Amino acid sequence: MLKNIRRAYSYISLEQTGALSILKFNRPKKYNAINPDMYDEIGDALRKEKANDSSSLLAITGEGSYYSSGNDLTAFAKWMAQGKSQEEMAETAHDIMVPFVDAFIEFDKPMISVVNGPAVGIGVSHLGLADFVYAHESATFYMPFTILGQSAEACSSVTFPKIMGPSDGHAMIMFNKKIDAEEAKNSKLVGEIYSDDGPVWQKIEEYSKLPKKSLKYSKQLVRTAADVEFLKQVNLREAARLRERWASPDCAEAIMKFLMRKG
Amino acid sequence: MLKNIRRAYSYISLEQTGALSILKFNRPKKYNAINPDMYDEIGDALRKEKANDSSSLLAITGEGSYYSSGNDLTAFAKWMAQGKSQEEMAETAHDIMVPFVDAFIEFDKPMISVVNGPAVGIGVSHLGLADFVYAHESATFYMPFTILGQSAEACSSVTFPKIMGPSDGHAMIMFNKKIDAEEAKNSKLVGEIYSDDGPVWQKIEEYSKLPKKSLKYSKQLVRTAADVEFLKQVNLREAARLRERWASPDCAEAIMKFLMRKG
Amino acid sequence: MLKNIRRAYSYISLEQTGALSILKFNRPKKYNAINPDMYDEIGDALRKEKANDSSSLLAITGEGSYYSSGNDLTAFAKWMAQGKSQEEMAETAHDIMVPFVDAFIEFDKPMISVVNGPAVGIGVSHLGLADFVYAHESATFYMPFTILGQSAEACSSVTFPKIMGPSDGHAMIMFNKKIDAEEAKNSKLVGEIYSDDGPVWQKIEEYSKLPKKSLKYSKQLVRTAADVEFLKQVNLREAARLRERWASPDCAEAIMKFLMRKG
Repeated sequence: MLKNIRRAYSYISLEQTGALSILKFNRPKKYNAINPDMYDEIGDALRKEKANDSSSLLAITGEGSYYSSGNDLTAFAKWMAQGKSQEEMAETAHDIMVPFVDAFIEFDKPMISVVNGPAVGIGVSHLGLADFVYAHESATFYMPFTILGQSAEACSSVTFPKIMGPSDGHAMIMFNKKIDAEEAKNSKLVGEIYSDDGPVWQKIEEYSKLPKKSLKYSKQLVRTAADVEFLKQVNLREAARLRERWASPDCAEAIMKFLMRKG
Repeated sequence: MLKNIRRAYSYISLEQTGALSILKFNRPKKYNAINPDMYDEIGDALRKEKANDSSSLLAITGEGSYYSSGNDLTAFAKWMAQGKSQEEMAETAHDIMVPFVDAFIEFDKPMISVVNGPAVGIGVSHLGLADFVYAHESATFYMPFTILGQSAEACSSVTFPKIMGPSDGHAMIMFNKKIDAEEAKNSKLVGEIYSDDGPVWQKIEEYSKLPKKSLKYSKQLVRTAADVEFLKQVNLREAARLRERWASPDCAEAIMKFLMRKG
Repeated sequence: MLKNIRRAYSYISLEQTGALSILKFNRPKKYNAINPDMYDEIGDALRKEKANDSSSLLAITGEGSYYSSGNDLTAFAKWMAQGKSQEEMAETAHDIMVPFVDAFIEFDKPMISVVNGPAVGIGVSHLGLADFVYAHESATFYMPFTILGQSAEACSSVTFPKIMGPSDGHAMIMFNKKIDAEEAKNSKLVGEIYSDDGPVWQKIEEYSKLPKKSLKYSKQLVRTAADVEFLKQVNLREAARLRERWASPDCAEAIMKFLMRKG
């Protein structure tokens, strides 16, 4: 009988079926935009799952039509309404980002992302830390970094050029290129494209039944303690740069310009 | 007149034609399964060829329809019959594996693998240490690691994700995915697919006639002393993990389950 | 009104339109073959552009039908006529190469190469240090290293296998394989192939209008100070090996053999 444990989160769901844990971004009405509390919930769930010896594999996907529309910008509006300065907001966002990304870096069992729809910003950048990525044929991948006066996050400054090659990786990181599932597969960001997710979940469940220790040790061979340390330094470097960017006038200007253009 | 030297081995052949040395896995009736003595012969041949200044390039291929069906499991049966404990077998296998893989790592001239048919386990994992890989259109590549309660070997925990990208690399290392020649070419594990091996050997022979020192120095630029040291550490790390795995009850259980399923 | 600054060079042109700087190899009659003075001019222009805060992005292309036919071999003939020994020529060439490649390594803003036609030797090897590479459909890529008794340059011993995968990368570095634009795109050396360069320059100009600091910081995240130091060590290693090669009898012999075969 499959054990089906639900953990009490507001913005995500975490279920376990046998040795397979499934984390879902669970704000479908907001296209799974990630607000500060949701960042914390995801980090918490990853740390809990890392310690959950009854689970051998974590899959991450989105509820609804989106995988994740990325950072919930309304959070900044709330902070502003609370009278936070731009520096304070930058500091707060930095302190949310670092442990969130570290939780992905330090996850020491296989992690499979199932990108069920469009993915934006942090909804894309963390995929460079996944062990395998499935993408629905409708999935798109967009990281509007420099156009918003910002820069890479979630170790994507290292993982994306390494996985995709410099041209494809930098096109996304430096030049805000949006790609579709086919382009993501060709450049190796995605391992497999699907239309019906039935067989995908079946396969993932089969993987979760593989010898547990071998799965864990295999992950620890492909991401050693030295790799974890290196990636955590990359995370700190990127987050420090983002804090400077978020506190800068040219970032505020770029965001305004972007919103007006989209308006 | 081309010098054609044959070295006296039981399970491999080693021939030299001009500056081209060709090592063949030579147990076609056993689909070139590699037994302990054959591991040693291959390591010995690689070390001898490294010191053979009259040869500028080593090609490796299989005799018969297989490239190599990987580890000869009957060796374990023999050890058991000799009363070896699981720990002793694990220790022996570890001590065979380390110098075998080191011989590939330390080979300081261009090495070309010509995968003439199916390749399994160690017959696949060492390809990540080759400089160029040709594959016959019938070739397949399968590393049943975790399904047998084991884990990566021959530096594949580093080379496969680096060459193939994490998704394709981890699909093989963590999730035992079997791929064909086309998939191996798309994910860059293989450089060229062939149907007729005549032109392949012609081209390899031409390569062997290139300026000898330039070939050697080019290999030493792409795999420096620091790279060799790093890869040897990866080899030790993987072999230590495999020793633990081979000595573990869950590995024995996984092998039984696999054999019964195949039976 | 777009500022259009021309810098006084003999063998290259350097223009700036808004925040976009364009460096052109400018010896179309010589298929943009790079002579010693041109090496110095390119290095000088890169260093000047690095310090040019009014420019956020540098594009490099070739005037005429070629991107660059690589090293201008007539330079060696002149040095011979001046009575320089083979060792002296090797030393001089080494001292030209190191600062030239360092200028590419140390360039800390996005660099886009627009390969407008055939590229040979150093005209190819430096592409591994670009952030994005466009290639005209007629472009070809050929690095005759070992066939000329030489070895890799411009960090290509590290960048090409990393970008292209070992097989495709070593085929070029070790075995002098010439590839076309399609092959270069498949192996990720090139990001995009074009037939009409109008839209390409339009897109590059748009990129140059992105927030300047974000572009610069993004480049500095993907190529950190530690990366720069590592690549400069690779440059020194390759240049030292080339100096030995250029001073060696077997290199001179290989060049003669190559020229006679081409003659």
